Amino acid sequence: MKKAVVLLSGGLDSTTCAYLASREGFAIYALSFDYGQRLRRELAAARAVALAIGAIEHKVISFDLRQWGGSALTAEIPVPQARSLPEIGKDIPSTYVPGRNTIFLAFGLSYAEARGAEALFIGVNAVDSSGYPDCRSEFIAAFQEVARLGTKVGAAGQTIRLVTPLIGLAKGAIVQLGNAAGVDYALTWSCYLGGDAPCQSCDACLLRAQGFNAAGIKDPLLDH
Amino acid sequence: MKKAVVLLSGGLDSTTCAYLASREGFAIYALSFDYGQRLRRELAAARAVALAIGAIEHKVISFDLRQWGGSALTAEIPVPQARSLPEIGKDIPSTYVPGRNTIFLAFGLSYAEARGAEALFIGVNAVDSSGYPDCRSEFIAAFQEVARLGTKVGAAGQTIRLVTPLIGLAKGAIVQLGNAAGVDYALTWSCYLGGDAPCQSCDACLLRAQGFNAAGIKDPLLDH
Repeated sequence: MKKAVVLLSGGLDSTTCAYLASREGFAIYALSFDYGQRLRRELAAARAVALAIGAIEHKVISFDLRQWGGSALTAEIPVPQARSLPEIGKDIPSTYVPGRNTIFLAFGLSYAEARGAEALFIGVNAVDSSGYPDCRSEFIAAFQEVARLGTKVGAAGQTIRLVTPLIGLAKGAIVQLGNAAGVDYALTWSCYLGGDAPCQSCDACLLRAQGFNAAGIKDPLLDH
Repeated sequence: MKKAVVLLSGGLDSTTCAYLASREGFAIYALSFDYGQRLRRELAAARAVALAIGAIEHKVISFDLRQWGGSALTAEIPVPQARSLPEIGKDIPSTYVPGRNTIFLAFGLSYAEARGAEALFIGVNAVDSSGYPDCRSEFIAAFQEVARLGTKVGAAGQTIRLVTPLIGLAKGAIVQLGNAAGVDYALTWSCYLGGDAPCQSCDACLLRAQGFNAAGIKDPLLDH
């Protein structure tokens, strides 16, 4: 059975990505990160999603990016609240973590090579890529070259393929696609704050709400 | 004062690289990794080198690559012993750690961006590059593109420059260069095993001895 590593945060995008990889017939090796982000609750969501899709393994790599901070997610910079949606994506937001996706993909590459996986899935999408440089297709293409040149399998002519099924998609299209693929969005978590219920005012909640609204689907986290 | 992040393992190559960066006038931000390798003694060497060159900071990022192994340095695979030197470099050795330098450079990139550093030094060299795919100049060039495309500073037109002062050099040339730059090799550690004195039979010890012999310089670790 062909194997794929899936970067899985437990949010809406990476969860959709994981279900899509599973439906493509890959044996899933899920990989999450605990890097001193505020959103530790995401990890529990990632675990639930990995179980739901029958992942072969779910690994969590821990490291501490608070050592150098530089982001609202890893230092004492306020998480942006209640921006209007048109503002989201105009500038690189304070939730940008320096080099984060490069670090994530590097670990994903290592894991994929160690397990003999042929694919590495990451849920970057149109909303992310409008704001974060390390979510754009040019960046993914550059990392593909790193994967080809910097691994033993690559040196042997078998590249680990980066797969980005959401790359052109807005949140509404992602929710529609995931819903059709049977994603259980009740398992996911998006809110940047860690309360009992989504705060419904941070950027992540606003984008999530926009996605469900655009898809014409109710968010199960708000139904309960 | 211009800033540089230097990847510093405490071995011969990265220590030489750190001294060279310091002599070029950079304020040094040293970065080491504790990734479940057998060679924990290297970390003490890295600390001593960082102090000796007056680094502004020395950060150690810990993560556990034993979670997926795949290398003699992170799993229960024997460390190669007493190979003849011509054999070293012919194949990718069992000490290859999947994606290791990609992970190291990813963290270095994050740290450099968080500190506003303009350069990222890594001590890859001719011996490494003959054996490890993630030490070759093509790989470094591919990662340079990742640095340009995957960072906020890169998006603003200021690339964090990867600097590889040892890239074409054999061990003898590295020791000569370092000696001329005032490197205190008594602070360094190369042996793959963690004894009180270098084992003098692992690949790392053999390569180190070859370097000092070729340079016509005594290894201070063997003088004591």
